[in-house]
Amino acid sequence: MIVAVDAAGGDYYPQNPVAGALLALQENDELTVLLIGPEAIINKELATHEYDKNRVLVYNAPEIIGMEESPSTAVKAKKNSSIVIGNSLIKVGKCQAFVSAGNTGALLAASTFILGKLEGVIRPTIGALYPTVKGFRLLVDAGANLEIKPEMAIQFAKMGKIFCREVLGIDSPKVGLLNVGEEEGKGTETLKEIYPALQASVSNFIGNVEGKDIMHGKADVFVCDGLVGNLILKFGESIPEILMMLIGKTIREANISQEDALKIQQVIASATASFNYENVGGIPFLGVNGVSLVGHGSSTPKAIKNMIHKAIQTYTQDVNGKIIASLN
Amino acid sequence: MIVAVDAAGGDYYPQNPVAGALLALQENDELTVLLIGPEAIINKELATHEYDKNRVLVYNAPEIIGMEESPSTAVKAKKNSSIVIGNSLIKVGKCQAFVSAGNTGALLAASTFILGKLEGVIRPTIGALYPTVKGFRLLVDAGANLEIKPEMAIQFAKMGKIFCREVLGIDSPKVGLLNVGEEEGKGTETLKEIYPALQASVSNFIGNVEGKDIMHGKADVFVCDGLVGNLILKFGESIPEILMMLIGKTIREANISQEDALKIQQVIASATASFNYENVGGIPFLGVNGVSLVGHGSSTPKAIKNMIHKAIQTYTQDVNGKIIASLN
Repeated sequence: MIVAVDAAGGDYYPQNPVAGALLALQENDELTVLLIGPEAIINKELATHEYDKNRVLVYNAPEIIGMEESPSTAVKAKKNSSIVIGNSLIKVGKCQAFVSAGNTGALLAASTFILGKLEGVIRPTIGALYPTVKGFRLLVDAGANLEIKPEMAIQFAKMGKIFCREVLGIDSPKVGLLNVGEEEGKGTETLKEIYPALQASVSNFIGNVEGKDIMHGKADVFVCDGLVGNLILKFGESIPEILMMLIGKTIREANISQEDALKIQQVIASATASFNYENVGGIPFLGVNGVSLVGHGSSTPKAIKNMIHKAIQTYTQDVNGKIIASLN
Repeated sequence: MIVAVDAAGGDYYPQNPVAGALLALQENDELTVLLIGPEAIINKELATHEYDKNRVLVYNAPEIIGMEESPSTAVKAKKNSSIVIGNSLIKVGKCQAFVSAGNTGALLAASTFILGKLEGVIRPTIGALYPTVKGFRLLVDAGANLEIKPEMAIQFAKMGKIFCREVLGIDSPKVGLLNVGEEEGKGTETLKEIYPALQASVSNFIGNVEGKDIMHGKADVFVCDGLVGNLILKFGESIPEILMMLIGKTIREANISQEDALKIQQVIASATASFNYENVGGIPFLGVNGVSLVGHGSSTPKAIKNMIHKAIQTYTQDVNGKIIASLN
């Protein structure tokens, strides 16, 4: 099994992708990693580590696509970037999967363009793994498709269920439609059309779910359009930082002892540990003809390692074969 | 100044509305409150309090609109409900404002139907007061209009700015458009049309803002459609409960002493105190021809009291006159 790792993507390259890839090697004897990016910086970083040289390959990709670059322009212009090369190497069978903490839009564009769509897929999608009191659950679409139609919603629900079952290990995933109220007939005209479509075509559809149901994990797959998914994702991601900022300020202003401050921070860290994105690492583009995953720009080595494990699972569980079977 | 108070609305009536009304009287010598609801239960509740009988009026409204009833059906069927009577009493000049913690949809329907729209208003709207690190800011629309057009967005922005300035005391309110990215040209077709419309017609428009910008208070008025507003509002409201649940669980499982547990809870309560909705109480329907405010179903007496103060401010600052002037 060869997993390609984008060593020029994310906020902390090459350090974090390289360290994460080497961590993954230690946990999986069958694995070989292929580090993609500017050769010189990868080799310099590798020189600071001890590792099994037979299981680490380097592929030179001198061009770099920045986090803020316009996706389609960058993918067209930079054929020698890690993002374009990573997907191309899947296409020609040089690796079984590609993982990156880089520019999500560019990754989606490159994987859709280079790998193509799975048979029967209308539009590939990217979900978000959302922390709930029951563990991570899937919000799909998370920004790839800002407006959706009933047929797309059905496919997102089906692909999301397969990912939840095969990779997250959720036995019989429930599908909910994010809406302003529980009753059928609520919402925009589009949502009123999507509800009966999901009811007719998706097993385990539990109906509409509301914003307050997300963190309670009322559904396993929350279906929404990419505008809603993106706004909720980014809003949710801002909360821990805001919370720690306010708690830090309170601790300073209230003259709390260092010892007590430590206890408080430990309790909060422990209470929110299950929300730690590092444990899931990344998520595949669903509907593309290959295994291509994306993680947070700020991915730590541990997050990269877990994204590699998720990629292996997505491949060995044949998520894509099961998606084709469910859609056709 | 007579403010009518719905004594048959919210999750804790008549106790909380009655107690809140009496608290407001103590803080404002010019105020008379008019309690609306089933006479017998109001009088029974009043009998448990000491208060100035000259400044408390009771208006019998025997019918009750439940929190889950279908708004338009309920408003049509129950002419003798506090929600219908409250708005009717504004219309005939028996009071200057009406506040309620009852069924939001029914309140919007009744105030739009009975009071009518202000001159030039396309659609009345309801905003949400959203806690940010800078204090409460306005998210508008919060569920009254699930789909919006550029002309509506312009009006929501203008009405929101007036509310922020006159009632929240924000000097020169900034308007942001909730979107998936900062650059102009991002988002759905509707958002691409709304951006230039806001830029052309609304002063202090700062462009697109993202989900992560909400709690940082990057804008003072966040413009969005009611689907997005409702989902973000309800999602955000669920967070403190989830957080306290997880922290409580951690404290129990880690065998933390009662003394330390208390300290931890105090720090968290103090850190999030500025997020306490009780301090703002409620928000007016913007664009209706009268002062009609709605608060959370779970409003405490303190929240009801502050909603009454917000109603007085909305009236005395002539928010509606200023809205007419800004739109025409």
